[in-house]
Amino acid sequence: MEPIFSVALVHYPVYNKHREVVTTAVMNLDIHDIARSSRTFGADRYYIVTPVEEQQKLVQKILLHWQSGWGAAYNPKRKAALDIVSILPSVSDALEDMETRGGRKPKVVVTGASTHSNSISSAEFTQEMREGNQSFLLLFGTGWGMTEELFDSADYVLEPIMGVGAYNHLSVRSAVSIYMDRLFGRR
Amino acid sequence: MEPIFSVALVHYPVYNKHREVVTTAVMNLDIHDIARSSRTFGADRYYIVTPVEEQQKLVQKILLHWQSGWGAAYNPKRKAALDIVSILPSVSDALEDMETRGGRKPKVVVTGASTHSNSISSAEFTQEMREGNQSFLLLFGTGWGMTEELFDSADYVLEPIMGVGAYNHLSVRSAVSIYMDRLFGRR
Repeated sequence: MEPIFSVALVHYPVYNKHREVVTTAVMNLDIHDIARSSRTFGADRYYIVTPVEEQQKLVQKILLHWQSGWGAAYNPKRKAALDIVSILPSVSDALEDMETRGGRKPKVVVTGASTHSNSISSAEFTQEMREGNQSFLLLFGTGWGMTEELFDSADYVLEPIMGVGAYNHLSVRSAVSIYMDRLFGRR
Repeated sequence: MEPIFSVALVHYPVYNKHREVVTTAVMNLDIHDIARSSRTFGADRYYIVTPVEEQQKLVQKILLHWQSGWGAAYNPKRKAALDIVSILPSVSDALEDMETRGGRKPKVVVTGASTHSNSISSAEFTQEMREGNQSFLLLFGTGWGMTEELFDSADYVLEPIMGVGAYNHLSVRSAVSIYMDRLFGRR
Protein backbone atom coordinates (compact mmCIF):
# COMPACT_ATOMS: atom_id res chain seq x y z
CA MET A 1 0.00 0.00 0.00
CA GLU A 2 1.27 3.48 -0.86
CA PRO A 3 1.84 5.60 2.23
CA ILE A 4 -0.50 8.57 2.67
CA PHE A 5 1.31 11.88 2.99
CA SER A 6 0.81 15.60 2.77
CA VAL A 7 3.23 18.48 2.43
CA ALA A 8 3.26 21.76 4.38
CA LEU A 9 5.20 24.89 3.51
CA VAL A 10 5.76 26.72 6.78
CA HIS A 11 5.86 30.54 6.80
CA TYR A 12 5.63 30.67 10.61
CA PRO A 13 7.46 29.92 12.87
CA VAL A 14 10.72 30.27 10.93
CA TYR A 15 13.99 32.13 11.47
CA ASN A 16 15.16 35.18 9.60
CA LYS A 17 18.78 35.94 8.77
CA HIS A 18 19.42 37.08 12.36
CA ARG A 19 17.80 33.95 13.86
CA GLU A 20 14.77 35.85 15.05
CA VAL A 21 11.43 34.02 14.80
CA VAL A 22 9.36 35.64 12.04
CA THR A 23 6.57 35.08 9.53
CA THR A 24 7.77 35.10 5.92
CA ALA A 25 5.67 36.24 2.97
CA VAL A 26 4.03 33.69 0.69
CA MET A 27 5.74 33.63 -2.70
CA ASN A 28 3.58 33.06 -5.76
CA LEU A 29 5.92 30.52 -7.33
CA ASP A 30 6.04 28.48 -4.13
CA ILE A 31 2.31 27.91 -4.55
CA HIS A 32 2.68 26.68 -8.13
CA ASP A 33 5.96 24.77 -8.06
CA ILE A 34 5.28 22.89 -4.86
CA ALA A 35 1.66 22.14 -5.88
CA ARG A 36 3.00 20.65 -9.13
CA SER A 37 5.59 18.45 -7.42
CA SER A 38 3.17 17.48 -4.64
CA ARG A 39 0.64 16.41 -7.24
CA THR A 40 3.25 14.57 -9.30
CA PHE A 41 4.53 12.58 -6.33
CA GLY A 42 1.12 11.75 -4.94
CA ALA A 43 0.65 14.05 -1.93
CA ASP A 44 -2.89 14.08 -0.58
CA ARG A 45 -2.77 17.80 0.32
CA TYR A 46 -0.31 20.67 0.04
CA TYR A 47 -0.80 23.02 3.00
CA ILE A 48 0.42 26.58 2.85
CA VAL A 49 0.85 27.61 6.47
CA THR A 50 0.64 31.28 7.39
CA PRO A 51 -1.18 33.03 10.25
CA VAL A 52 -1.40 36.30 8.26
CA GLU A 53 -4.95 36.81 7.05
CA GLU A 54 -4.11 39.07 4.11
CA GLN A 55 -1.70 36.43 2.85
CA GLN A 56 -4.33 33.75 3.21
CA LYS A 57 -6.74 35.87 1.16
CA LEU A 58 -4.11 36.51 -1.49
CA VAL A 59 -3.46 32.78 -1.89
CA GLN A 60 -7.21 32.10 -2.10
CA LYS A 61 -7.47 34.67 -4.87
CA ILE A 62 -4.64 33.07 -6.84
CA LEU A 63 -6.16 29.62 -6.37
CA LEU A 64 -9.53 30.85 -7.54
CA HIS A 65 -8.04 32.27 -10.72
CA TRP A 66 -6.62 28.89 -11.67
CA GLN A 67 -9.44 26.78 -10.33
CA SER A 68 -12.46 28.52 -11.77
CA GLY A 69 -11.24 31.72 -13.42
CA TRP A 70 -9.66 32.21 -16.80
CA GLY A 71 -6.64 30.12 -15.76
CA ALA A 72 -8.69 26.93 -15.35
CA ALA A 73 -9.54 26.82 -19.05
CA TYR A 74 -6.12 28.03 -20.18
CA ASN A 75 -4.19 25.43 -18.19
CA PRO A 76 -6.27 22.56 -16.76
CA LYS A 77 -3.13 20.80 -15.57
CA ARG A 78 -2.36 23.71 -13.30
CA LYS A 79 -5.88 23.46 -11.94
CA ALA A 80 -5.33 19.77 -11.15
CA ALA A 81 -2.20 20.68 -9.16
CA LEU A 82 -3.76 23.59 -7.29
CA ASP A 83 -6.83 21.52 -6.36
CA ILE A 84 -4.80 19.90 -3.58
CA VAL A 85 -3.72 23.23 -2.02
CA SER A 86 -5.13 24.33 1.36
CA ILE A 87 -4.15 27.48 3.16
CA LEU A 88 -4.15 27.20 6.96
CA PRO A 89 -2.98 29.35 9.88
CA SER A 90 -0.76 26.81 11.68
CA VAL A 91 1.00 23.46 11.52
CA SER A 92 -1.42 22.04 14.09
CA ASP A 93 -4.33 23.02 11.86
CA ALA A 94 -2.70 21.06 9.04
CA LEU A 95 -2.28 18.04 11.34
CA GLU A 96 -5.90 18.31 12.41
CA ASP A 97 -7.09 18.55 8.82
CA MET A 98 -5.11 15.43 7.90
CA GLU A 99 -6.56 13.57 10.87
CA THR A 100 -10.09 14.60 9.91
CA ARG A 101 -9.52 13.54 6.30
CA GLY A 102 -7.72 10.27 6.98
CA GLY A 103 -9.01 9.22 10.37
CA ARG A 104 -5.58 8.84 11.91
CA LYS A 105 -3.02 11.10 13.51
CA PRO A 106 -0.17 11.74 11.08
CA LYS A 107 3.50 11.52 12.00
CA VAL A 108 5.43 14.76 11.57
CA VAL A 109 8.51 14.70 9.37
CA VAL A 110 10.85 17.70 9.24
CA THR A 111 13.58 18.57 6.80
CA GLY A 112 16.26 21.21 6.85
CA ALA A 113 19.65 22.23 5.52
CA SER A 114 21.63 21.21 8.61
CA THR A 115 22.15 17.84 10.30
CA HIS A 116 20.45 17.09 13.63
CA SER A 117 21.53 14.44 16.13
CA ASN A 118 18.43 12.34 15.35
CA SER A 119 18.45 12.75 11.55
CA ILE A 120 17.74 9.69 9.44
CA SER A 121 18.43 9.23 5.73
CA SER A 122 15.70 9.29 3.09
CA ALA A 123 16.36 5.58 2.49
CA GLU A 124 15.87 4.70 6.17
CA PHE A 125 12.71 6.78 6.31
CA THR A 126 11.33 5.16 3.15
CA GLN A 127 11.81 1.79 4.82
CA GLU A 128 10.02 2.97 7.95
CA MET A 129 7.21 4.49 5.91
CA ARG A 130 6.48 1.29 4.02
CA GLU A 131 6.36 -0.82 7.16
CA GLY A 132 3.55 0.77 9.12
CA ASN A 133 0.05 1.78 8.23
CA GLN A 134 0.74 5.46 8.91
CA SER A 135 0.22 8.86 7.37
CA PHE A 136 2.87 11.58 7.27
CA LEU A 137 3.05 15.34 7.16
CA LEU A 138 6.29 16.58 5.60
CA LEU A 139 7.20 20.07 6.83
CA PHE A 140 9.37 22.43 4.80
CA GLY A 141 10.57 25.78 6.13
CA THR A 142 10.89 29.11 4.37
CA GLY A 143 13.24 31.97 5.34
CA TRP A 144 16.25 30.70 7.25
CA GLY A 145 14.49 27.47 8.29
CA MET A 146 11.96 26.24 10.85
CA THR A 147 12.47 26.82 14.56
CA GLU A 148 14.28 24.33 16.79
CA GLU A 149 10.98 23.73 18.61
CA LEU A 150 9.47 22.33 15.42
CA PHE A 151 12.49 20.10 14.93
CA ASP A 152 12.36 18.91 18.55
CA SER A 153 8.67 18.05 18.41
CA ALA A 154 8.86 16.11 15.12
CA ASP A 155 8.59 12.34 14.85
CA TYR A 156 11.26 12.17 12.15
CA VAL A 157 14.06 14.48 11.03
CA LEU A 158 15.37 13.82 7.54
CA GLU A 159 19.04 14.31 6.70
CA PRO A 160 19.80 17.39 4.60
CA ILE A 161 20.29 17.02 0.85
CA MET A 162 24.00 17.13 0.14
CA GLY A 163 25.53 18.10 -3.16
CA VAL A 164 29.11 17.40 -4.11
CA GLY A 165 30.97 20.13 -2.22
CA ALA A 166 30.62 22.53 0.68
CA TYR A 167 27.93 24.64 -1.03
CA ASN A 168 24.47 23.51 0.01
CA HIS A 169 21.89 26.25 -0.53
CA LEU A 170 18.95 24.90 -2.49
CA SER A 171 15.73 26.86 -2.81
CA VAL A 172 12.83 25.40 -0.85
CA ARG A 173 11.18 24.61 -4.20
CA SER A 174 14.18 22.47 -5.19
CA ALA A 175 14.47 20.84 -1.77
CA VAL A 176 10.80 19.81 -1.70
CA SER A 177 11.08 18.30 -5.19
CA ILE A 178 14.22 16.34 -4.38
CA TYR A 179 12.89 14.96 -1.08
CA MET A 180 9.66 13.84 -2.75
CA ASP A 181 11.58 12.19 -5.57
CA ARG A 182 13.80 10.39 -3.06
CA LEU A 183 10.82 9.20 -1.02
CA PHE A 184 8.14 8.57 -3.66
CA GLY A 185 9.68 8.78 -7.17
CA ARG A 186 9.65 5.81 -9.50
CA ARG A 187 12.99 4.96 -11.11
CA MET B 1 37.15 11.21 -10.84
CA GLU B 2 33.98 13.28 -10.72
CA PRO B 3 32.49 13.85 -14.17
CA ILE B 4 32.61 17.42 -15.49
CA PHE B 5 29.20 18.78 -16.42
CA SER B 6 27.36 21.98 -17.12
CA VAL B 7 23.67 22.81 -17.29
CA ALA B 8 21.84 24.85 -19.94
CA LEU B 9 18.35 26.29 -19.69
CA VAL B 10 17.08 26.58 -23.23
CA HIS B 11 14.71 29.43 -24.15
CA TYR B 12 15.10 28.76 -27.86
CA PRO B 13 14.30 26.58 -29.76
CA VAL B 14 11.32 25.36 -27.71
CA TYR B 15 7.66 24.68 -28.41
CA ASN B 16 4.74 26.75 -27.20
CA LYS B 17 1.33 25.35 -26.29
CA HIS B 18 0.43 24.99 -30.00
CA ARG B 19 3.71 23.22 -30.83
CA GLU B 20 5.09 26.22 -32.68
CA VAL B 21 8.82 26.89 -32.27
CA VAL B 22 9.27 30.01 -30.15
CA THR B 23 11.62 31.85 -27.80
CA THR B 24 10.37 31.98 -24.21
CA ALA B 25 11.12 34.82 -21.79
CA VAL B 26 13.77 34.39 -19.11
CA MET B 27 12.18 34.12 -15.68
CA ASN B 28 13.99 35.68 -12.74
CA LEU B 29 13.52 32.71 -10.44
CA ASP B 30 14.91 30.33 -13.06
CA ILE B 31 18.18 32.22 -12.80
CA HIS B 32 18.35 31.90 -9.01
CA ASP B 33 16.90 28.46 -8.37
CA ILE B 34 18.83 26.67 -11.09
CA ALA B 35 22.06 28.50 -10.21
CA ARG B 36 21.65 27.32 -6.62
CA SER B 37 21.02 23.69 -7.54
CA SER B 38 23.76 23.74 -10.20
CA ARG B 39 26.22 25.05 -7.64
CA THR B 40 25.07 22.56 -4.99
CA PHE B 41 25.47 19.57 -7.31
CA GLY B 42 28.81 20.67 -8.75
CA ALA B 43 28.04 21.99 -12.23
CA ASP B 44 30.93 23.81 -13.83
CA ARG B 45 28.68 26.37 -15.56
CA TYR B 46 24.98 27.17 -15.77
CA TYR B 47 24.19 28.57 -19.22
CA ILE B 48 21.07 30.59 -19.82
CA VAL B 49 20.41 30.27 -23.54
CA THR B 50 18.45 32.99 -25.32
CA PRO B 51 19.08 34.75 -28.62
CA VAL B 52 17.14 37.85 -27.49
CA GLU B 53 19.56 40.67 -26.72
CA GLU B 54 17.30 42.58 -24.33
CA GLN B 55 16.85 39.42 -22.29
CA GLN B 56 20.60 38.85 -22.22
CA LYS B 57 21.09 42.40 -20.94
CA LEU B 58 18.39 41.94 -18.31
CA VAL B 59 20.07 38.79 -16.99
CA GLN B 60 23.45 40.56 -16.93
CA LYS B 61 21.90 43.34 -14.89
CA ILE B 62 20.45 40.89 -12.36
CA LEU B 63 23.76 39.03 -12.14
CA LEU B 64 25.63 42.30 -11.56
CA HIS B 65 23.33 43.22 -8.70
CA TRP B 66 24.14 40.00 -6.87
CA GLN B 67 27.76 39.77 -7.90
CA SER B 68 29.01 43.26 -7.18
CA GLY B 69 26.01 45.37 -6.22
CA TRP B 70 24.16 45.59 -2.94
CA GLY B 71 23.13 41.94 -3.19
CA ALA B 72 26.69 40.62 -3.02
CA ALA B 73 27.15 41.92 0.53
CA TYR B 74 23.61 41.05 1.61
CA ASN B 75 23.78 37.44 0.45
CA PRO B 76 27.28 36.15 -0.42
CA LYS B 77 25.92 32.62 -0.91
CA ARG B 78 23.73 33.86 -3.72
CA LYS B 79 26.79 35.46 -5.27
CA ALA B 80 28.63 32.12 -5.12
CA ALA B 81 25.75 30.47 -7.00
CA LEU B 82 25.40 33.20 -9.62
CA ASP B 83 29.16 33.24 -10.28
CA ILE B 84 28.73 30.12 -12.44
CA VAL B 85 26.00 31.66 -14.65
CA SER B 86 26.73 32.55 -18.28
CA ILE B 87 24.20 33.94 -20.69
CA LEU B 88 24.69 32.84 -24.31
CA PRO B 89 22.69 33.10 -27.55
CA SER B 90 22.58 29.40 -28.50
CA VAL B 91 23.18 25.83 -27.43
CA SER B 92 26.17 25.61 -29.76
CA ASP B 93 27.71 28.63 -28.07
CA ALA B 94 27.37 26.80 -24.75
CA LEU B 95 29.04 23.71 -26.23
CA GLU B 96 31.85 25.83 -27.63
CA ASP B 97 32.35 27.57 -24.29
CA MET B 98 32.57 24.20 -22.53
CA GLU B 99 35.09 22.96 -25.08
CA THR B 100 37.20 26.10 -24.64
CA ARG B 101 37.11 25.79 -20.86
CA GLY B 102 37.68 22.05 -20.61
CA GLY B 103 39.64 21.19 -23.73
CA ARG B 104 37.24 18.51 -24.88
CA LYS B 105 33.99 18.32 -26.77
CA PRO B 106 31.13 17.67 -24.35
CA LYS B 107 28.40 15.10 -24.89
CA VAL B 108 24.89 16.50 -25.09
CA VAL B 109 22.29 15.11 -22.69
CA VAL B 110 18.63 16.04 -23.08
CA THR B 111 15.72 15.66 -20.71
CA GLY B 112 12.01 16.06 -21.15
CA ALA B 113 8.61 15.12 -19.84
CA SER B 114 7.91 12.42 -22.45
CA THR B 115 9.64 9.14 -23.25
CA HIS B 116 11.70 8.80 -26.44
CA SER B 117 12.65 5.54 -28.13
CA ASN B 118 16.31 5.98 -27.15
CA SER B 119 15.72 7.16 -23.56
CA ILE B 120 17.94 5.74 -20.84
CA SER B 121 17.40 5.84 -17.08
CA SER B 122 19.32 8.15 -14.77
CA ALA B 123 20.98 5.07 -13.24
CA GLU B 124 22.18 3.83 -16.65
CA PHE B 125 23.47 7.26 -17.53
CA THR B 126 25.29 7.61 -14.19
CA GLN B 127 27.06 4.33 -14.99
CA GLU B 128 28.02 5.59 -18.45
CA MET B 129 29.19 8.91 -17.03
CA ARG B 130 31.53 7.35 -14.52
CA GLU B 131 33.13 5.07 -17.08
CA GLY B 132 34.57 7.51 -19.59
CA ASN B 133 36.68 10.59 -19.22
CA GLN B 134 33.99 12.83 -20.69
CA SER B 135 32.24 16.09 -20.04
CA PHE B 136 28.50 16.61 -20.38
CA LEU B 137 26.08 19.41 -21.14
CA LEU B 138 22.63 18.78 -19.66
CA LEU B 139 19.91 20.60 -21.60
CA PHE B 140 16.60 21.59 -20.02
CA GLY B 141 13.76 23.11 -22.00
CA THR B 142 11.36 25.90 -21.06
CA GLY B 143 7.86 26.45 -22.48
CA TRP B 144 6.35 23.20 -23.79
CA GLY B 145 9.77 21.55 -24.18
CA MET B 146 12.73 21.52 -26.57
CA THR B 147 12.29 20.81 -30.26
CA GLU B 148 12.52 17.30 -31.71
CA GLU B 149 15.66 18.41 -33.57
CA LEU B 150 17.44 18.97 -30.27
CA PHE B 151 16.33 15.56 -29.04
CA ASP B 152 17.46 13.90 -32.28
CA SER B 153 20.90 15.49 -32.24
CA ALA B 154 21.63 14.65 -28.57
CA ASP B 155 24.08 11.97 -27.44
CA TYR B 156 21.84 10.87 -24.57
CA VAL B 157 18.14 11.23 -23.83
CA LEU B 158 17.21 10.75 -20.17
CA GLU B 159 13.93 9.14 -19.18
CA PRO B 160 11.32 11.52 -17.80
CA ILE B 161 10.84 11.83 -14.04
CA MET B 162 7.77 9.87 -13.07
CA GLY B 163 5.72 10.44 -9.97
CA VAL B 164 3.20 7.98 -8.63
CA GLY B 165 0.24 8.52 -10.94
CA ALA B 166 -0.68 9.89 -14.34
CA TYR B 167 0.04 13.53 -13.41
CA ASN B 168 3.57 14.48 -14.42
CA HIS B 169 3.93 18.25 -14.75
CA LEU B 170 6.91 19.44 -12.77
CA SER B 171 8.29 22.94 -13.17
CA VAL B 172 11.62 23.11 -14.97
CA ARG B 173 13.16 24.27 -11.67
CA SER B 174 11.96 21.08 -9.97
CA ALA B 175 12.98 18.86 -12.87
CA VAL B 176 16.52 20.26 -12.99
CA SER B 177 16.93 19.76 -9.23
CA ILE B 178 15.67 16.19 -9.31
CA TYR B 179 17.81 15.16 -12.28
CA MET B 180 20.92 16.62 -10.66
CA ASP B 181 20.17 14.87 -7.39
CA ARG B 182 19.68 11.57 -9.22
CA LEU B 183 22.92 11.97 -11.16
CA PHE B 184 25.22 13.71 -8.68
CA GLY B 185 23.61 13.77 -5.19
CA ARG B 186 25.20 12.05 -2.23
CA ARG B 187 22.93 9.79 -0.20
